[in-house]
Amino acid sequence: MVVIHKSLKINSDSKFQIVDITSVINKELASLNLSNGIVNVFSKHSTTGIVINENESGLLSDFKKSLEDVILSSNNYKHDRIDNNASSHLKAFLIGSSQSIPIIDNKLDLGTWQSVFFVELDGPRVNRTITLTFIGE
Amino acid sequence: MVVIHKSLKINSDSKFQIVDITSVINKELASLNLSNGIVNVFSKHSTTGIVINENESGLLSDFKKSLEDVILSSNNYKHDRIDNNASSHLKAFLIGSSQSIPIIDNKLDLGTWQSVFFVELDGPRVNRTITLTFIGE
Amino acid sequence: MVVIHKSLKINSDSKFQIVDITSVINKELASLNLSNGIVNVFSKHSTTGIVINENESGLLSDFKKSLEDVILSSNNYKHDRIDNNASSHLKAFLIGSSQSIPIIDNKLDLGTWQSVFFVELDGPRVNRTITLTFIGE
Repeated sequence: MVVIHKSLKINSDSKFQIVDITSVINKELASLNLSNGIVNVFSKHSTTGIVINENESGLLSDFKKSLEDVILSSNNYKHDRIDNNASSHLKAFLIGSSQSIPIIDNKLDLGTWQSVFFVELDGPRVNRTITLTFIGE
Repeated sequence: MVVIHKSLKINSDSKFQIVDITSVINKELASLNLSNGIVNVFSKHSTTGIVINENESGLLSDFKKSLEDVILSSNNYKHDRIDNNASSHLKAFLIGSSQSIPIIDNKLDLGTWQSVFFVELDGPRVNRTITLTFIGE
Repeated sequence: MVVIHKSLKINSDSKFQIVDITSVINKELASLNLSNGIVNVFSKHSTTGIVINENESGLLSDFKKSLEDVILSSNNYKHDRIDNNASSHLKAFLIGSSQSIPIIDNKLDLGTWQSVFFVELDGPRVNRTITLTFIGE
């Protein structure tokens, strides 16, 4: 059994952006001698999130709109007096900072329609950082 | 330290269904020589989720209704032009695909009022698959 | 590789309370001989949650208000006929019971603006219990 950390860097281009990181994680995994275990995908920011769902452009657009319906962009937020991005934080609270995914035979054990996404909620930003923690054998 | 994967299959009977899988997980765990560790419960679908809460029928009905209040069943979703189940995906985004639970003395370390649930959001379906990943010693 | 469980106890003072537990977790971690791995922070209650975000008092107040906007305090909930706390459970469903965080060099690998919070949704209560599961080497 081993633990291996890898760091991914992402530069985002717009306020809201959803980036499919499945192939990047599988590429890191392919470079490791790790057949079975788990990977934790953790975003080190409070205005981003990690989600798993289907990579279909219409659906990702629907997801953006649903978040905006649930968390209004401005709503007399107290945090906006300090830093004008309360709604970005509040969306991150709902989405969550990490996901853990099984690894079987050196591959992510995702379903046919599942991809792993990094969600930028307060871009554009440089050097958004994701820590991958692989645990297994 | 070991890693052990187990696969659970569930056939759902209706559009929305919430299935208590606590006893099934504990049964799998009882068959393993694993005293302490963690289990990741991962659903391999983008229109399902895993949640932990109290198994009280009224509450589970309230949960269904709350999801429907937050994510409308139709709302001019773009994904509905391709596959008429956008609201099922959007609920899954909110719920999340997995949960990780401590294992102490070969049992799930749940609180008195906690159960682990598989949530079907786009049933009925056959062979919904959950991967359990046990890590421990 | 080892697995170590630690139990944290929290007494909450009000109906809604958000408690920063980052330093408590780091203190537990400092007492362990564990350089690299992961910690799962799991709350053993169905009316509490664990979230990761920025510790800014205005933002935490905005978070409370957003939860109240999404989950109304009363809405003819069926669970309220049994136990008058349906909205607390429904908020817990959205937040989730646990988070997993990388450990690098015997420290939580959090970003600059990230703290780990226990969220009380149905206080005041004594002896709320959080299980920390450290896995690593």
